[in-house]
Amino acid sequence: MKDQTDMTIPTYDDVEAAHARIAPHIHHTPVLTSRYFNGLSGAELFFKCENFQKAGAFKVRGASNAVFGLSDDMAARGVATHSSGNHALSLSYAAGRRGIPCHVVMPRTAPEAKKEAVRGFGGMITECEPSTTSREAVFAEVQAETGAEFVHPYNDPRVIAGQGTCSKELMAQIEGLDAVIAPIGGGGMISGTCLTLSSLAPHVEIYAAEPEQADDACRSFKAGHIIADDAPVTVADGLKVPLKDLTWHFVRNHVTDILTASEQEIIDAMKLTWQRMKIVIEPSCAVPLAVILKNREIFAGKRVGVIITGGNVDLDRLPWIKG
Amino acid sequence: MKDQTDMTIPTYDDVEAAHARIAPHIHHTPVLTSRYFNGLSGAELFFKCENFQKAGAFKVRGASNAVFGLSDDMAARGVATHSSGNHALSLSYAAGRRGIPCHVVMPRTAPEAKKEAVRGFGGMITECEPSTTSREAVFAEVQAETGAEFVHPYNDPRVIAGQGTCSKELMAQIEGLDAVIAPIGGGGMISGTCLTLSSLAPHVEIYAAEPEQADDACRSFKAGHIIADDAPVTVADGLKVPLKDLTWHFVRNHVTDILTASEQEIIDAMKLTWQRMKIVIEPSCAVPLAVILKNREIFAGKRVGVIITGGNVDLDRLPWIKG
Repeated sequence: MKDQTDMTIPTYDDVEAAHARIAPHIHHTPVLTSRYFNGLSGAELFFKCENFQKAGAFKVRGASNAVFGLSDDMAARGVATHSSGNHALSLSYAAGRRGIPCHVVMPRTAPEAKKEAVRGFGGMITECEPSTTSREAVFAEVQAETGAEFVHPYNDPRVIAGQGTCSKELMAQIEGLDAVIAPIGGGGMISGTCLTLSSLAPHVEIYAAEPEQADDACRSFKAGHIIADDAPVTVADGLKVPLKDLTWHFVRNHVTDILTASEQEIIDAMKLTWQRMKIVIEPSCAVPLAVILKNREIFAGKRVGVIITGGNVDLDRLPWIKG
Repeated sequence: MKDQTDMTIPTYDDVEAAHARIAPHIHHTPVLTSRYFNGLSGAELFFKCENFQKAGAFKVRGASNAVFGLSDDMAARGVATHSSGNHALSLSYAAGRRGIPCHVVMPRTAPEAKKEAVRGFGGMITECEPSTTSREAVFAEVQAETGAEFVHPYNDPRVIAGQGTCSKELMAQIEGLDAVIAPIGGGGMISGTCLTLSSLAPHVEIYAAEPEQADDACRSFKAGHIIADDAPVTVADGLKVPLKDLTWHFVRNHVTDILTASEQEIIDAMKLTWQRMKIVIEPSCAVPLAVILKNREIFAGKRVGVIITGGNVDLDRLPWIKG
C-alpha cells in the first residue's frame, strides 16, 4: 500500500482536465448566502454547498477524476481504498458510474449505517480489525488478489486536481472574493483550493479551519514540518487524518493561516447553520464558520468563500442531543 | 375577533398585485430536484423550497401582503394575530420591515423557543390561557386597546393572495407541470395555489396532503361541508387547524383530491428528505412526499410540483429520536 506518492505535483491544467472529465458525473453545486450570518460575522459569506454534491460530499470530485482517468485496462481491474467515510462512498459512486468494481477496506467496528451506505453505491467491503497493521495487511491482500488501482483519499495528484474543481466553480460563480476558507483534515480540499487559486487568483487569501482537538495541521504549519497525531478525538470526524507529503506541499506554500475552533464552537456553528440556513451540514464543515465567527478581526469587511464540504450526518446521533 | 370574513374572494389580479408588493421583502425561492426521489416515486418531482423563505416559511408571503397593503393610517396602529407558529413569526417579520407594531396572542404554555423566535423578529407577545375562550377574550382586549388590524393566519383574502405568489413563481420556474401538491391545514397555501393555477393553468391537478390523524379537510372534502376537529394530535403541528369559509371555497371548487399519510410515513419521509436532499424541512411539508410515495399509481409518470412549506423545526426534539 503506497501512502507516499511519487510527489507528482498536479498543475492547474490538471484541474481543467479533471473538470471536463467529471462534469457529467457531478453536480455544479449552488452558492448560498445568509443575511443572518453576514450580520453576525461582519463579512459577506458565500457558501459553496458541496453538501448537495453527489454522494453528499466534495470527495466525489477527486474520486471521479481518478476513476474516469484510468485506461480501460486499468479500469477493468477496479479501484480500491481504505476509508470509512465520504471517500469510500464517493469512490463507490464513481466506480459504479463507470461500471467497474470498487473494493473498500473498512474496520469491522465501523457503524453499520456507513457500511450500508457504501454497499448502496455498489462498493464491496472487506473488513479489517480496527488497527493500522490489520488495515495495511488486509488492504495489501485485496490489492494483490484484484490488481485494483489504489486511490488514496487525499494524498493523490488525481484526487487533488479533482477537488480543485470546486473552487474553480466558486470563482466563476462569485466575483471579487478576498478569501476562501475550508476545513482541513488530510488536506485534499485545501490542496485543491491552493492549486486552483494560486493560478486563477493568487491574491485571494486561503484559510484552513481545524478542530482544536485535532490541530495537527495547525501545529505542522507553525513547526514547518508534518506533525501527525495518533488518534485525535473530535466531533468533526472527517478531519482526524494527518497531512501527507503532497498535501503538505500545498499547505506550506499557499495557505495564509490555519485557525482552530473548540468542540462546542463547532457544534454551535453546525446547529446554527441548520436552524438559520435550513441545510444539513456535517460537523466538519461547521469548523470554517466557527472560525469566522470567533475571528471577526480577520474576516469582517471581506468577501469570503466558505466551502461546505458535505452533508452526510447520522441523523440518529446529533452532537447537540445527549443520547 | 372576526374569524369569519366577509367572503371577499380574491382574484388572480390580487396575486399579481401581491407579488409586486411583497417582492422586495421575500426570497424568490429555488426549486430543487432529486434523482433519488424521482426513482423512488416514478415521477419527476420539483421541490419549491419555501423552507429557505424569510422567517423560514411560505407564510411570510401572505403576512407581508397584508402588512404592506395597509394604508399609512391603519398601519400606524399595527397588526395583531393569534398563532404560536409560522404565521406569528412571519407577521412579526413583515411588521418589522414596515416599522409598525405586531401584537401576538400566544398561550402561556407555548414553547419558550417559539416565544423567543417571535420576539427575535420584534413581535410583542400577550399571553393567554391555552383555551379558545381565553384566547378570544385576550385577543379582543389587545385589539380594543391598540386598534391593530387583525390578520388571520389563513382565512383572509390578503393572506390567500399572498400565498398564491408561491405557485406563480413555481409556474415560471418549471414548465409543463401536470400536478402540484401541498400540505393542507387551514388551507391558506392550498387556496393560494388554487387561485393561481385556476387562472394560469387550469389543467394542472391540485392535490392536498394531510395527516391521517388530522384528516378533517379530507373528511370535509368527501362530505361536502366543513368538518372541524377539536384537538387533533399529529407530528405535523402546522396542520392541526380547520378549514374556514374562504379556504373551503377554494378547496371545494378547485382541489383534485385530498390524500392522507400516517404519522410514521410522515416521519420517514421527513428523515429521508434530510438524509437525501440535505435540507431541513418541517414535519408538515413531509406530508406531500409521504403521500406521493404511497400513491405511486396517481403520481408516476407525472411532472409534480411539491411545495416545501417551511423549515422551522425544534432541533432539540426530532420526531425520530426518542427523548
